Amino acid sequence: MGATESECNNDLQRERNAASIRSEDFAVWWAGGGEVLEQQRSLERFFLDDPQFEDAEHPSFMSYKERYEHAVAKGSKFVLKLRQWRQRTGQTTAAEDGEKELPNMQVLHDLRMLMSGSLGTALFQQSFPLRLHYSMFLSTLLNQGTAEQQQEWLSRAWRLDGVIGTYAQTELGHGSYIRGLETRADYDPKSQEFVLNTPTLSAYKWWPGGLGHTANMVVVLAQLYIRGKHHGLQPFLVRIRDEQTHEPMPGIDVGDIGAKLGANAVNNGFLGFRNVRIPRTQMLMKNAQVLADGTFVKATQPLLLYGTMVFVRVMIVRDVMFGLLQAATIATRYSAVRRQSPIEPHAAEPQILDHLTQQEKVLPQVARGVCYRLAADVLWTFYQRVTSQLASKQTEAAAGRQLAELHALSCSLKAVCTLDAAEGIDVLRKSCGGHGYLASANFDSIQGLANAAVTYEGEYTVLLLQTARFLQRQYVDGLKRKVLPASVTYLRNATRLSWSNSNLLENVARALEISATEQVRDAWQWQQTQRKLGQHTQEQATNLAGRRLISAASLHGHVYLVRNSINQLKQLQGSQLKPELLEVLQQLIELFVLDTWQRQLGAVLKWNNISGRQLQQVERRYEQLLQQLRPNAVAVVDGFDFHDRVLGSTLGCYDGRVYERLMEHARGNPLNQESVNRSYHTHLRPLMQAKL
Amino acid sequence: MGATESECNNDLQRERNAASIRSEDFAVWWAGGGEVLEQQRSLERFFLDDPQFEDAEHPSFMSYKERYEHAVAKGSKFVLKLRQWRQRTGQTTAAEDGEKELPNMQVLHDLRMLMSGSLGTALFQQSFPLRLHYSMFLSTLLNQGTAEQQQEWLSRAWRLDGVIGTYAQTELGHGSYIRGLETRADYDPKSQEFVLNTPTLSAYKWWPGGLGHTANMVVVLAQLYIRGKHHGLQPFLVRIRDEQTHEPMPGIDVGDIGAKLGANAVNNGFLGFRNVRIPRTQMLMKNAQVLADGTFVKATQPLLLYGTMVFVRVMIVRDVMFGLLQAATIATRYSAVRRQSPIEPHAAEPQILDHLTQQEKVLPQVARGVCYRLAADVLWTFYQRVTSQLASKQTEAAAGRQLAELHALSCSLKAVCTLDAAEGIDVLRKSCGGHGYLASANFDSIQGLANAAVTYEGEYTVLLLQTARFLQRQYVDGLKRKVLPASVTYLRNATRLSWSNSNLLENVARALEISATEQVRDAWQWQQTQRKLGQHTQEQATNLAGRRLISAASLHGHVYLVRNSINQLKQLQGSQLKPELLEVLQQLIELFVLDTWQRQLGAVLKWNNISGRQLQQVERRYEQLLQQLRPNAVAVVDGFDFHDRVLGSTLGCYDGRVYERLMEHARGNPLNQESVNRSYHTHLRPLMQAKL
Repeated sequence: MGATESECNNDLQRERNAASIRSEDFAVWWAGGGEVLEQQRSLERFFLDDPQFEDAEHPSFMSYKERYEHAVAKGSKFVLKLRQWRQRTGQTTAAEDGEKELPNMQVLHDLRMLMSGSLGTALFQQSFPLRLHYSMFLSTLLNQGTAEQQQEWLSRAWRLDGVIGTYAQTELGHGSYIRGLETRADYDPKSQEFVLNTPTLSAYKWWPGGLGHTANMVVVLAQLYIRGKHHGLQPFLVRIRDEQTHEPMPGIDVGDIGAKLGANAVNNGFLGFRNVRIPRTQMLMKNAQVLADGTFVKATQPLLLYGTMVFVRVMIVRDVMFGLLQAATIATRYSAVRRQSPIEPHAAEPQILDHLTQQEKVLPQVARGVCYRLAADVLWTFYQRVTSQLASKQTEAAAGRQLAELHALSCSLKAVCTLDAAEGIDVLRKSCGGHGYLASANFDSIQGLANAAVTYEGEYTVLLLQTARFLQRQYVDGLKRKVLPASVTYLRNATRLSWSNSNLLENVARALEISATEQVRDAWQWQQTQRKLGQHTQEQATNLAGRRLISAASLHGHVYLVRNSINQLKQLQGSQLKPELLEVLQQLIELFVLDTWQRQLGAVLKWNNISGRQLQQVERRYEQLLQQLRPNAVAVVDGFDFHDRVLGSTLGCYDGRVYERLMEHARGNPLNQESVNRSYHTHLRPLMQAKL
Repeated sequence: MGATESECNNDLQRERNAASIRSEDFAVWWAGGGEVLEQQRSLERFFLDDPQFEDAEHPSFMSYKERYEHAVAKGSKFVLKLRQWRQRTGQTTAAEDGEKELPNMQVLHDLRMLMSGSLGTALFQQSFPLRLHYSMFLSTLLNQGTAEQQQEWLSRAWRLDGVIGTYAQTELGHGSYIRGLETRADYDPKSQEFVLNTPTLSAYKWWPGGLGHTANMVVVLAQLYIRGKHHGLQPFLVRIRDEQTHEPMPGIDVGDIGAKLGANAVNNGFLGFRNVRIPRTQMLMKNAQVLADGTFVKATQPLLLYGTMVFVRVMIVRDVMFGLLQAATIATRYSAVRRQSPIEPHAAEPQILDHLTQQEKVLPQVARGVCYRLAADVLWTFYQRVTSQLASKQTEAAAGRQLAELHALSCSLKAVCTLDAAEGIDVLRKSCGGHGYLASANFDSIQGLANAAVTYEGEYTVLLLQTARFLQRQYVDGLKRKVLPASVTYLRNATRLSWSNSNLLENVARALEISATEQVRDAWQWQQTQRKLGQHTQEQATNLAGRRLISAASLHGHVYLVRNSINQLKQLQGSQLKPELLEVLQQLIELFVLDTWQRQLGAVLKWNNISGRQLQQVERRYEQLLQQLRPNAVAVVDGFDFHDRVLGSTLGCYDGRVYERLMEHARGNPLNQESVNRSYHTHLRPLMQAKL
């Protein structure tokens, strides 16, 4: 009935044999060189060959509580083994040296990449409760703690020496508008303590990962009051559970907020304070300070705080790119294995990837993921340049201008990429038909994380409105013929589209730029009209232009992605890539650009005069690209080099033994360990004997 | 901190006081009259006031196995209580009468409506394992069993007298293309038995609800062979578990397929046969027959079989309408309770429903649900007309033409409505920000069911391609000036759009009709071109035109929804509705029509010449409608009359006590019943003492 263990599905093998590229060449390019690729693989082997990280039971069968306990157990083993790995590869000194080793931002960045990248995904498909300790908690201590505070806490936290932390900002009633947060910290100069309180139900901290039952310390954002005077939001370090017993400290009300659409192993928690006192030294005072006598000293470097938000958003673009490509890999392989619906009557059922409609679902997502990666790389370089400028104490104004551009770009890309990736993952799931709906296909975990990213760290509507504000300022500056930052220079140049029959990519890029510019203008004029006609304030008019502003910001994000892809393609064309690989990359980038056109067609046609012939030209090329990429589809997704455990999918494994794995997974279902479930005796049998 | 039990959130109360309509008036209209509304409410009270149907623990905390056992227990109680209700309301005779009572299609239809409507949803947010017994199993016995077979099995099945059934068609390797099914039944004339076998792994039955551990009988679709000769797919009634012990019968390999994105209480199963013998009389022979000597007698009424598929698809349009409006109700109420992001600086945070961007997320979904309902009603009437024609033995050709139109319409509406409803629910979930992501908000269950509906009973791409085939035939008939069925008459009439400044709805409807017509033409011409240029067969050319065909079929579905809404509006205008209610319904229908325009803008602009001024006209009216509907938003969703248990949401309850319910739900989390989880002692404490 089945094939032997080592066999590969014939169709999948045939795909690999017939591809024009070697997936290993793709993998080397994708990883950024053969050495990096080998490092990644050896890291994965170190963990994934270790049987202690294998799950005895699939998490989808566990109760919520079991899933938490499983994640804590596995997470603890992971942290221990990670320390071994770091020692083995010389990234850290042995703990026995007794030196106080402190992590820097580079270490934390690498760790974050590891946890949200291949290894972290392979081990924790629904994330895990210690993750926020390593990301937000440590980085906040590092960025906002004074040297003394770092001396006292950072090393302990890094070594988990009596400290497991998380970061508590969002409240039950307050999210993206952080000035609305209600948790308060009153300074008591007599005892030199802060007194923390949760004045209302809506002021409960809500969401922080690991907060429920894992963390024993928290960085809390609270409104600072000194002698009744408000001094804005400040970060406080608070112990919430006893170091020895783990019992909640007096005045602390803490717990887990419950199940979610995804990320169900994170242990997101709630937290309330009732007259909780902490020493003055536990306000993180690298920026603002409170002196012993209650004197408040203002922050000097607000721009740096800004930088952290940008950092997180740049990382999120990478996260959702990763999820999108996981899903695309699963769907592509499944589409090569699954056979259905003859194209010719009486012929055999073809691989579903031979249906043009299936190619249209799958291949553009592969292309999109590749182009997100190209954008994320450039964005990261931009981020590093700006932060090093900030650090080098350039004039605040110059660095501020750069930061404003970067901030707007990261806002719109975070919003656009998370939305489009989540939608793409959904298309990919649906492309696998009924089987895509099974938890064992793993689209639920992948989509769960992507869906979360749409909202956290800046809800998409809020971010797009922020971007639009920036675009409008730039547009007005452009009218005054001021020089604009590189990513928005196009706003000054709203000439009509001149169509080139030989350069479709440039046509698309220009058409999108014109659309974005016109959409900014439209929103701007609409606000002016509203103010005049409707007697509205500027802010009311902005609200009434909300839809139009959001369209403008979203178009801007797409403009950037398209322009950047074209630019990167030019660089690739000048590089040493094998011609057959270059050809495929070229097809992928072109597909992404034309796909963006198709998806933004309403806006494109609204703001440009495009003839029927021109439309047909794009559409024909688009369909041609699908067919050209078809033979290399499997080789390309193989080139992302996802370990089977990273995909975590019965449908997406390298060997393509889909039906065997689906059945194996079903047989492992705890329900199937008994031939008759006890509910038969307690309920079904009495029901059948009830003589209804 | 909280309000008292009986209190209602102030903002929500204010919305209700300020509305121009009475939600009770809306509810009466929506239910189809005051009497129907009262019946529904009394049915709900009968069940929902009964404490045995309250869940001690929220299902999101349960393990997969616990959830199954919980669903069997609750489902059994439901069936018993339902019998009480039917006796009480005179819908059935008391069982003690000893009469053999048989259900008819009307009874089964009403039962299906009840189970997928308010009551079923309130009790079983993730469905339940007995549902397929009442829908597919009983209706197949009724439609495909002979009088003798019904005598023998239907009454027992209806009374659950030793029989719990399900319907097994889909296989592990075969879905929408049912001719590809592999399960086979060989007739053995000597013993007058059929021998059932699962020849390959991919032939395992996979998906049937209740199959895993609940059903003891199954209607199985299998390829019939008599003396090696193939006679197509036929339905067989097979006992798979012992009536007394519930152990699988010899040769039966059965179990549960595992967790899914939703509907996790359904007990979907797999099933394999190894030389399983059943008597000849257990092939359902109302249509085709096998005589004792092995003579095969062909089916005479294939059209009726066709009718069942249409029936199910018509029902699905209603199901997803229901889910969409559940979600819209939750999001609307939450948007009136949640306050965030000041519109005016230094002002208080407004209800988020005051943000135009939020109105754009929520209100069009309300409108969409209402218009789906209007379409589902008309479709149901159409279905009843066609089936009664079929039953009255009209000439097969005439009934066949009607059925073909109905079939195409049900295919495109099933595809379009499920896709758009699933997307709408997703928008609504996102409109609730982070809290929408919580399982207690219940979007996950609602979305899970809608997502399943996109694929089951005809995968959307397959259905759209079927619709497109119909449209192309009609288009060609139109070129020959033949008379076309009502729903596609527009295909004959492709004149250019003449814009009316006073009738935007008509402009939109015409523009969509022209777009659909042109898209059908484009796909048709593209096929011709491909055949000529590419030396392709007709079928290959069809594959290469797949994208274009799908666009055409999808546009056709939208044309129908828009045209039908406009027609229904005219009828409403002639009815006795209160003027203020009529005004709101008018706004909702207009919003749906203009929203369809916005969402199909690419296609509209591709195939019509629309000026910038005309575009602005639609956009302004669209934004105006959002603001006009805003004050009645809460009253409208109140008018859907969803019991709080139907919504099952911490965010959507009638009293708007969102934060109180979120916290109450969190406190009920099993993880929170202990202040320290055991994994602290087993893992976290050792980790913190490991001196990393």
